[in-house]
Amino acid sequence: MNIAVAQSGGPTCAINASLVGVFKQGLLTEKIDAIFGSINGIEGMIYDKLLNLKSVIRTNEDMELLRQTPSTILGSCRYKLPDYEENPEIYEKILQTLQTHRIHIFIYIGGNDSMDTVVKLSGYLKAVGSDIKVIGVPKTIDNDLPVTDHTPGFGSAAKYVATTVQEIIRDSSVYSLPSVTIIEIMGRHSGWLTASTCMLRANGEEAPHLIYLPETDFSADRFMEDVRKEMAKHKAVVVAVSEGISLNAEDSGIAEFQSGAVDNFGHKYLSGVGKFLERLIADKIGCKVRSIELNVMQRCSSHICSKTDIDEAERIGRHALRTALDGETGKMMYFRRISSMPYAVTIEMTDASNVANLEKKFPKEWISPEKNQVTDAAIGYFLPLIQGEVDIYMKNGMPVHFHRPLQVR
Amino acid sequence: MNIAVAQSGGPTCAINASLVGVFKQGLLTEKIDAIFGSINGIEGMIYDKLLNLKSVIRTNEDMELLRQTPSTILGSCRYKLPDYEENPEIYEKILQTLQTHRIHIFIYIGGNDSMDTVVKLSGYLKAVGSDIKVIGVPKTIDNDLPVTDHTPGFGSAAKYVATTVQEIIRDSSVYSLPSVTIIEIMGRHSGWLTASTCMLRANGEEAPHLIYLPETDFSADRFMEDVRKEMAKHKAVVVAVSEGISLNAEDSGIAEFQSGAVDNFGHKYLSGVGKFLERLIADKIGCKVRSIELNVMQRCSSHICSKTDIDEAERIGRHALRTALDGETGKMMYFRRISSMPYAVTIEMTDASNVANLEKKFPKEWISPEKNQVTDAAIGYFLPLIQGEVDIYMKNGMPVHFHRPLQVR
Repeated sequence: MNIAVAQSGGPTCAINASLVGVFKQGLLTEKIDAIFGSINGIEGMIYDKLLNLKSVIRTNEDMELLRQTPSTILGSCRYKLPDYEENPEIYEKILQTLQTHRIHIFIYIGGNDSMDTVVKLSGYLKAVGSDIKVIGVPKTIDNDLPVTDHTPGFGSAAKYVATTVQEIIRDSSVYSLPSVTIIEIMGRHSGWLTASTCMLRANGEEAPHLIYLPETDFSADRFMEDVRKEMAKHKAVVVAVSEGISLNAEDSGIAEFQSGAVDNFGHKYLSGVGKFLERLIADKIGCKVRSIELNVMQRCSSHICSKTDIDEAERIGRHALRTALDGETGKMMYFRRISSMPYAVTIEMTDASNVANLEKKFPKEWISPEKNQVTDAAIGYFLPLIQGEVDIYMKNGMPVHFHRPLQVR
Repeated sequence: MNIAVAQSGGPTCAINASLVGVFKQGLLTEKIDAIFGSINGIEGMIYDKLLNLKSVIRTNEDMELLRQTPSTILGSCRYKLPDYEENPEIYEKILQTLQTHRIHIFIYIGGNDSMDTVVKLSGYLKAVGSDIKVIGVPKTIDNDLPVTDHTPGFGSAAKYVATTVQEIIRDSSVYSLPSVTIIEIMGRHSGWLTASTCMLRANGEEAPHLIYLPETDFSADRFMEDVRKEMAKHKAVVVAVSEGISLNAEDSGIAEFQSGAVDNFGHKYLSGVGKFLERLIADKIGCKVRSIELNVMQRCSSHICSKTDIDEAERIGRHALRTALDGETGKMMYFRRISSMPYAVTIEMTDASNVANLEKKFPKEWISPEKNQVTDAAIGYFLPLIQGEVDIYMKNGMPVHFHRPLQVR
């Protein structure tokens, strides 16, 4: 029998490690012949764009390199599978591809949108009497999937963010003038990544002095008051703010910073919250102020990835294939935390419908009453996820990536 | 006798390593008693804000940590020493501080503005018959100082930029839609750091497909033509552009992206070139386009610093003190390259006046005739500067910084 695997949604540092997990487990499984990679997520299944992964990943060194290469080696998509009633042809095309290549298992690595695809495709296959199995593997730097303790990709993003924010703290404190530095961090509707900057307190940092998350309402007036209070205590105030904070409609000048563009899933592209707050401070306080957007570096900085994250991403990929081989379908694999200290997780499965299109918010009980900080209780949750460094392959003083041109079959 | 050291200008990853060099050499020199650190560059000398470095840096581990801590442990300044005729009191205050603390040597680590201070202060001291020596140590991520082959701080910035641009290249190529990614890189008037992205070709990358430097004139029309040509060849076009490219006055909409603010040295604060080009492409081509500003991370990402750079920064600091002890004054230390392969440099001295207020541009002969690429000849110049990784101290999964609160004496 053959199997196929695909990657979907926004890139992370760990999504290729999950692919390696599926691939390694496939190699170890006697009854599996070809392991196909579907190009650009589910789109490759629709348009029959597959490649034979064994001709791409040829050595142990290839697997090691792939584990430390960010982004998705197979490309990605943001394609939303329509309901069957809306477009049965799409489903038939996918079935056609699966059957043409004798694919019995399809592993989909992605976020909550991708789990929607797992639900719909596995439901369709059951309905037409096929025994092809579909299993989801979670992935997102946003850490906002329900059920699972955390998501592969998040730990590496959090390690990059903590490392970089700490360096920005050093950078921001060199001049004798009072200043405010605003760091804008990814997170559309959940503040996990922004909140994770509280970990710096474990290494003796006081900053970020203020942390704002999308989970609470945000008031520009309260923000200005908070900044003034911190400026009275610290010469260089550092603020971590989630790109998705809910600006009050009454706050002036906000509209121009939010573009109306939406992606295929109806998500709004957010940008410019940092810039907005920067201008607000320049306008109302007039001190030295700078905003910094960590941008896509948050999801692709493999050179400072978390070994725990990369190892877990590979492990959950392997489990996904084993679960499919056990006859399960329509499930997503997830991490259940047994203990934080010492850190221990097990890998379990849940119906993908428990995750599809849903979001897990950062817990309100870990947000300070003033809505501008994260409590110490969260530190113990975050810390285990960023432990360990991967021994990165270097060549000419730069990391080596796996970036062979791919030949579509 | 006592000595003093100060740090000035924009932060880098290597400026604390140069401080460690001065400090270590001071410890080894029998006739030196106290080693003072001047807070906020020359300002500490004016206002007598000094600290005893031996009470701050106490162990070998402290020195090791300081070598891998970005930014300036002693703070910095952008203070421009006025001409003596304009403000003799300032000079008298500095002399007062020097004499009060029996300081016979002052080492100033900084850029071309700081070398101006070295020239003026050493000239004043000679004029008043003092035998206090003043020596400059170069420092800037911009690599734009004359005489020296390269500047401490540049290698680490270039290693960060190459590493990050490579990760952004991976990130930018995941979707099936054609796209343009614009990466804005620091460099007010010189394109060294932006040009250094050509090193990625040594690791098999084709991108950045276009590289624009301040050393040539820039035309928005030619830029659009270049982008269209590259889009015909590559699905995901990546552009590296210096923040300081000279936009043509005739190019529309440029004024709003350049703020009129200037610092104490009359430098214009530039920002938004990437954002400007992003909007231009969105407007004229309408494809997926994103601009990314590498921002202060370019100068403070110690976690991926160049070992060559850090080691050299320490070495040149040590040489500076030895040169002062030899009786020299008004000099700046510099690197002379003996050979690129194998890499070898010597440390020499030059009159600080050969460097003060001057800039070294990126060589025109290393820019392609089309003014949109850097030639292979530059790769051999850049590569030695980013070799080697520092074994970073980690705690709780995050780098450890030296950031003890400082007690001013």
